[in-house]
Amino acid sequence: MRQVSVIGSSKASEEEYEFAYRLGKELAKRNLVVVCGGRTGVMEAVCKGAKEEGGLTIGIMPSYDGHEANPYVDIKVNTGMNWNRNPIVVASSEMVLAVGGNYGTLSEIAYALILGKYVVGYKTHKVEGVEQVESLEEMLKKVDEFFGGRL
Amino acid sequence: MRQVSVIGSSKASEEEYEFAYRLGKELAKRNLVVVCGGRTGVMEAVCKGAKEEGGLTIGIMPSYDGHEANPYVDIKVNTGMNWNRNPIVVASSEMVLAVGGNYGTLSEIAYALILGKYVVGYKTHKVEGVEQVESLEEMLKKVDEFFGGRL
Amino acid sequence: MRQVSVIGSSKASEEEYEFAYRLGKELAKRNLVVVCGGRTGVMEAVCKGAKEEGGLTIGIMPSYDGHEANPYVDIKVNTGMNWNRNPIVVASSEMVLAVGGNYGTLSEIAYALILGKYVVGYKTHKVEGVEQVESLEEMLKKVDEFFGGRL
Amino acid sequence: MRQVSVIGSSKASEEEYEFAYRLGKELAKRNLVVVCGGRTGVMEAVCKGAKEEGGLTIGIMPSYDGHEANPYVDIKVNTGMNWNRNPIVVASSEMVLAVGGNYGTLSEIAYALILGKYVVGYKTHKVEGVEQVESLEEMLKKVDEFFGGRL
Repeated sequence: MRQVSVIGSSKASEEEYEFAYRLGKELAKRNLVVVCGGRTGVMEAVCKGAKEEGGLTIGIMPSYDGHEANPYVDIKVNTGMNWNRNPIVVASSEMVLAVGGNYGTLSEIAYALILGKYVVGYKTHKVEGVEQVESLEEMLKKVDEFFGGRL
Repeated sequence: MRQVSVIGSSKASEEEYEFAYRLGKELAKRNLVVVCGGRTGVMEAVCKGAKEEGGLTIGIMPSYDGHEANPYVDIKVNTGMNWNRNPIVVASSEMVLAVGGNYGTLSEIAYALILGKYVVGYKTHKVEGVEQVESLEEMLKKVDEFFGGRL
Repeated sequence: MRQVSVIGSSKASEEEYEFAYRLGKELAKRNLVVVCGGRTGVMEAVCKGAKEEGGLTIGIMPSYDGHEANPYVDIKVNTGMNWNRNPIVVASSEMVLAVGGNYGTLSEIAYALILGKYVVGYKTHKVEGVEQVESLEEMLKKVDEFFGGRL
Repeated sequence: MRQVSVIGSSKASEEEYEFAYRLGKELAKRNLVVVCGGRTGVMEAVCKGAKEEGGLTIGIMPSYDGHEANPYVDIKVNTGMNWNRNPIVVASSEMVLAVGGNYGTLSEIAYALILGKYVVGYKTHKVEGVEQVESLEEMLKKVDEFFGGRL
């Protein structure tokens, strides 16, 4: 199974939510397993989209019992480590997709770059090393290029 | 999806390996997702058994890249935290099954009990709060009783 | 600076509290820095004793802000990781002293043994690899033997 | 004891090293305990400066045994968590001082802001919420204003 991590704010704007929802659908169509922080906002949207296309979703949860998981998380990995679970979210995939995001997302981008992951972002933090895209289509092209070479 | 955690030594005896392998098969037949530490020994055996019955296996890995995963791990959750990943293994299921085990397993049993999990053990540490069983059949009976009430 | 970790229940009996308090005094007299989980019970007692003799105390705190520290903790190391901070408590010293204790202490003993630490216990879990002593004097003798060779 | 966290790259430029070294001296003169990641570069420089003025230094180490600590770390807190120890570095103080820095520092800045810490930076990442200063004098003025109100 090939995994892709999707990161973004728990308080997504309507546009970010829609973007992440459509992204989730497309990732599931490509048989990619979605790894995320398991909560609301971008995390919920990408899981919802993935589930509607029969995908598998993994939530790396802040709590010990996963009570805060959105309803579209299949597998809850309960860490009990609060925000310290962020590095695990990005370490668990080779490619990281960022959609918007606040400081939590910034910490995940930083860890992704420490770990040498390929990070593609849409309307996210302008950090050197992140490849910025302007549309879902452009992001999916990056996904296809990346995983295409690994099939 | 319902998850069950299986813990035990990375250096299993032949009998422990066989026990865990057969356990993996039975858990997969019950559609239970197997969560484990992702490495060798009992972890490998339970994943191997689960995969032979079409089950899904999750490995909570010590490293950042999951290179040490056994070949039967479907989803690698890469923590980069070495042994500190142990609490995550047991926090991610409601029921924890211990097969043999050394100090790593003891730490997981301790965390499972801290977190109020139901722990059933076969030839494992004699810790108050762990329900000890003498056979695979007895362990599976406990599994059925536990998850039966939750279906 | 030489560090020693003291572990034990946050709900100590009167005898355990007194034992840990006297232990803290003796460790401080030996210029040993006390590392502990920073909370109540045995942790509070050992810090209190150490402070009364001018010692230095380090609390590895479960929370992000250390609000739960006992009043005798000098340095709060705030982890935000709840019980997952336990391995850090024992990794931060070469010698680990256990006084009584419940499942949290058991997890720390297990990690101490994984990491090859020298563990001496008083009325604590009977785990192979832990050296059990019957009195404070006997524990201090072990401390002197251990650190004596390192001065 | 009042703690201040200093973050920055393990590969400091000569100017950053000098800045951090002088910063360490000034923090120690103010009786502030220095918390850092315990390694080379900015971390080493700030510890070295602090020690020369009789200060106390805490290193939150990536490894389980602290072998990578610079020689000016007094207290080694060994985490075994590699880069995942970064949030602990910033959670353990109310004020965070950043000097230069790469992705590791960026992750620490992000965590500091998540946790609501006051972050002052010199030639560091331009992140909203970080107060940027142009000189050591300006940074020390912020330190004095912050801790002055708490004495």
